[in-house]
Amino acid sequence: MTNKDARTPASTQDPTGTSENGEAGKSIGWHKAYVEGTRPDLRVPVRQVHLTNGQSVTLYDTSGPYTDPLVGTDVRRGLTPLRENWITARGDTEEYEGRPVRPEDDGIRHTSPRGGLRNLDAVFPGRPRQPRRGRGGRAVTQLAYARRGEITPEMEFAAIRENVAPEVVREEIAAGRAVLPANVNHPEIEPMIIGKRFLVKVNANIGNSAVTSSIEEEVEKMTWATRWGADTVMDLSTGRNIHTTREWVLRNSPVPIGTVPLYQALEKVDGRAEELTWEIYKDTVVEQAEQGVDYMTVHAGVRLAYVPLTAHRKTGIVSRGGSIMAAWCLAHHKESFLYEHFEELCEILAAYDVTYSLGDGLRPGSIADANDEAQFAELRTLGELNTIAKRFHVQTMIEGPGHVPMHKIKENIDLQQEICEEAPFYTLGPLTTDVAPAYDHITSGIGAAMIAWWGTAMLCYVTPKEHLGLPNRDDVKTGVITYKIAAHAADLAKGHPGAQEWDDALSDARFEFRWEDQFNLALDPDTAREFHDETLPAEPAKTAHFCSMCGPKFCSMKISQDIRREHGGSRTEIEEGMAQKSKEFAAAGNRVYLPLTD
Amino acid sequence: MTNKDARTPASTQDPTGTSENGEAGKSIGWHKAYVEGTRPDLRVPVRQVHLTNGQSVTLYDTSGPYTDPLVGTDVRRGLTPLRENWITARGDTEEYEGRPVRPEDDGIRHTSPRGGLRNLDAVFPGRPRQPRRGRGGRAVTQLAYARRGEITPEMEFAAIRENVAPEVVREEIAAGRAVLPANVNHPEIEPMIIGKRFLVKVNANIGNSAVTSSIEEEVEKMTWATRWGADTVMDLSTGRNIHTTREWVLRNSPVPIGTVPLYQALEKVDGRAEELTWEIYKDTVVEQAEQGVDYMTVHAGVRLAYVPLTAHRKTGIVSRGGSIMAAWCLAHHKESFLYEHFEELCEILAAYDVTYSLGDGLRPGSIADANDEAQFAELRTLGELNTIAKRFHVQTMIEGPGHVPMHKIKENIDLQQEICEEAPFYTLGPLTTDVAPAYDHITSGIGAAMIAWWGTAMLCYVTPKEHLGLPNRDDVKTGVITYKIAAHAADLAKGHPGAQEWDDALSDARFEFRWEDQFNLALDPDTAREFHDETLPAEPAKTAHFCSMCGPKFCSMKISQDIRREHGGSRTEIEEGMAQKSKEFAAAGNRVYLPLTD
Repeated sequence: MTNKDARTPASTQDPTGTSENGEAGKSIGWHKAYVEGTRPDLRVPVRQVHLTNGQSVTLYDTSGPYTDPLVGTDVRRGLTPLRENWITARGDTEEYEGRPVRPEDDGIRHTSPRGGLRNLDAVFPGRPRQPRRGRGGRAVTQLAYARRGEITPEMEFAAIRENVAPEVVREEIAAGRAVLPANVNHPEIEPMIIGKRFLVKVNANIGNSAVTSSIEEEVEKMTWATRWGADTVMDLSTGRNIHTTREWVLRNSPVPIGTVPLYQALEKVDGRAEELTWEIYKDTVVEQAEQGVDYMTVHAGVRLAYVPLTAHRKTGIVSRGGSIMAAWCLAHHKESFLYEHFEELCEILAAYDVTYSLGDGLRPGSIADANDEAQFAELRTLGELNTIAKRFHVQTMIEGPGHVPMHKIKENIDLQQEICEEAPFYTLGPLTTDVAPAYDHITSGIGAAMIAWWGTAMLCYVTPKEHLGLPNRDDVKTGVITYKIAAHAADLAKGHPGAQEWDDALSDARFEFRWEDQFNLALDPDTAREFHDETLPAEPAKTAHFCSMCGPKFCSMKISQDIRREHGGSRTEIEEGMAQKSKEFAAAGNRVYLPLTD
Repeated sequence: MTNKDARTPASTQDPTGTSENGEAGKSIGWHKAYVEGTRPDLRVPVRQVHLTNGQSVTLYDTSGPYTDPLVGTDVRRGLTPLRENWITARGDTEEYEGRPVRPEDDGIRHTSPRGGLRNLDAVFPGRPRQPRRGRGGRAVTQLAYARRGEITPEMEFAAIRENVAPEVVREEIAAGRAVLPANVNHPEIEPMIIGKRFLVKVNANIGNSAVTSSIEEEVEKMTWATRWGADTVMDLSTGRNIHTTREWVLRNSPVPIGTVPLYQALEKVDGRAEELTWEIYKDTVVEQAEQGVDYMTVHAGVRLAYVPLTAHRKTGIVSRGGSIMAAWCLAHHKESFLYEHFEELCEILAAYDVTYSLGDGLRPGSIADANDEAQFAELRTLGELNTIAKRFHVQTMIEGPGHVPMHKIKENIDLQQEICEEAPFYTLGPLTTDVAPAYDHITSGIGAAMIAWWGTAMLCYVTPKEHLGLPNRDDVKTGVITYKIAAHAADLAKGHPGAQEWDDALSDARFEFRWEDQFNLALDPDTAREFHDETLPAEPAKTAHFCSMCGPKFCSMKISQDIRREHGGSRTEIEEGMAQKSKEFAAAGNRVYLPLTD
């Protein structure tokens, strides 16, 4: 989204976004600015790009305080809890002792000789805190407020980011068509809204596993992902230090954090799916809700009766959560405990304002399995669960596939919107072919752009390492950028107000050979600049009226500028003046370009 | 396309495709094989992938003799002219002296102290050759043959590649819905077909410019592009050695070569567009036709009256050819000489079987300019020219944009198909947003997949360097792979017979943890293997029944395999047996996975 010159940010500071090789005066670059709302503690961050022609373009910013040189950040202390006053002022929550943190919360086995962790202080060195929940178990969700007609500061914050009236945000949440994930125990976030009437959002997955990676790496991946535009981050850790990693991520995250509690619950029973119980699962949900997880993937749609539907699939069940629940159902030959206890789960989530992300445990894992009976049977159950969740005022989104060929994509969003009463759809890709491991950010970026155009509200990124390994820093960036492209392409196709201003500003810069502006407006300024410099490294090339593609002889942009100069009037004026202009053109030497070099 | 076990290649040799780190016995890899047609000199190359389960998968192969260890290649001698006998046997062409090669053909200025080049021997050291053309100027085009009901060896060759009957190829060419670019002076090519009823094709652009690159680099880029799957290559050279570079590329290319003759013509007038004449242009077309160029982009649709339509565009005219012609029209205030002399041009092209690629010189260069009056005015003219070309039996395809947001893409292909009587559409992307320089392979890969699904026959790739610089080797590979993904995703969505077998084979390998098979079946085996090894480098991980994403604990594929083992029967059997199986599952220790490591 751009608000080109539409709104002046409330406060600005010195430019900070000038690239490494940019110099003051030549590249004005960009800086972090804030748009103030109706109260002084409501300041919405934006990325203000300063163009060399004196204009500026305002872009949506997900990077948090890390890109503001006036704000000191320290990952050992965590971010400032900017929503704290808003939450306490509502007076509907209370602090309480909280569930004690146990060694097994961190995947430390019962037989471990190490002592247990006693409290939150032990897992995170920042300010001491007690968890908070709805007083007397009441629903303290943005959905409950919206239904009561209240516009919360969170809603106003999100509205400013989207450049819409706060009432639009409230309405969409109240109707269940949008969610604003904001656990009362995650006051650090900068609120954002997920729904088809708003900008398409992108989620980035991080998480250590039994095989590799550390706490520091995961925190760093989270800030790195949000720097490039991730709107939410899911911590899918499955290995050791699972509780502690999550605490560090939450305390340092400016974006909503999602999890799959089932992964941690399985750790607590040493990986034996059949030993899972509702009690262990519930305990894990409370543990994570107290930490501040904003949305949770719950695979309650994987019912016993659907498991056999997957037996003859090409790739069976590819969702981890789905396969765990399928294994549990089989082992006990019982209905899923998540499905059976869904209402109780709603009560818990409502008391913290944790948003449901109803998981598609039976999503297709191959082109062959797309849109099959198992997948759509589960979707119908998710529709049923969505209705129940709404009864408890729990915000809800619905997860979608997966691997789907292009001609079967639209059916997914259409069916989901119908069955789930327009609840936000949150899809993984979909991947449009299976044949390109190492390029699944692209196979899925294609499907993601299409399904987002047709109404998907949030896209879960896929990195180049999908199917092959864990994403490193570069993979996270590539995944996020690819999905920001898909999301923005969809914003354009949906005609989102203001979306095209960004493209227009960049294309103007391109046409006018304002190279630095083109770089600074790019989704990834660093790589754009680097690629340009590979071919034409010299500084004069940054202001040259040609580029390396055509060289000075063939520059079509230059010729077009000449045409515009010759024919800048109205159509009639142009046509009338053409013969005359033609003579002048010849008189001027018929040079359609200025040869800057030989 | 895959012909899984459907056809046994006529001849095979030792596996050659085993990766650097593969070892005999563990990875059987792939090798080049040939499918024989109705005559012994008609051998269609395929890539035969050998799976570890004893099956094999046959994939379309564009890489030419370079990947056949039994064929010696030498870039100084060129490839074997495999079509030579087919062409001479038709008896409708004749060799002739040919136009003398002049110094200015290589961009050597009239004032150059160096002596001129006398003949083809001087520019290429391979076998001496004289150019060939239709006897008495007759049309020796595949279209002329197809209309007469003749199935040429070229048509049969293409039909075998597509896994269709030769008659289908003939019919589609005769109807003008497909082209088989095959200049009589380019006997080295392995014939292929471009049309919406066939597999979607990908073109890769190469070419030096005034700024950078050499002859050797361009030949190497061509073989590199075809190795990764480019179906045709356009040589867009604009600098020095333009004639010689093209000769080397043609003599060594197994795929059809396209050019934009206007670029070279402009070189001959020192870059002064207004000095271009029909005579200079025609001379250049003959020069290139004699060399063997298979298809030529001709911007004959940029008419004088359309130039003012671009004056108020965001980015004017972005096509180099389009802007050159616009400049010429303005300078002289005359109708385009290409439009005026179009019939004469048809006669020349027909005598060599050069295929038209009617250029979209007024294509949009930004989201703002998509589907505007200038663009569609030119398209209507291209429809008119298409009809004329067909009268002269010249095979014709139509070029398309460019920068187009998703919701405006379908109108492009629908209108083109209607106006141009279903002539093959050949599009550049389209790019679905302007905001991601350095990632325009992705912004355009999205649009390319969609427009190909809807009927575009060939996609011109876009590399990450688009708008920024000249593509290097890595960029060429990334561009080709991205576009092969788009093309294959479209083949799937179109339901092309056999397309999904490739995906199925790879997904089977994935589900069964046949890692080496998954790599060998991948569009880019090298990168897939490299990414896997980054996280789990040890050899045992190549046969491990888990991967780095989940680790051994959570492997959903493993759990699915257990489900399949438990419930492998029919639906009824499955449901009846579930309770019983559940008991057995418990008795077996309720382990849904085999923990291969701790």
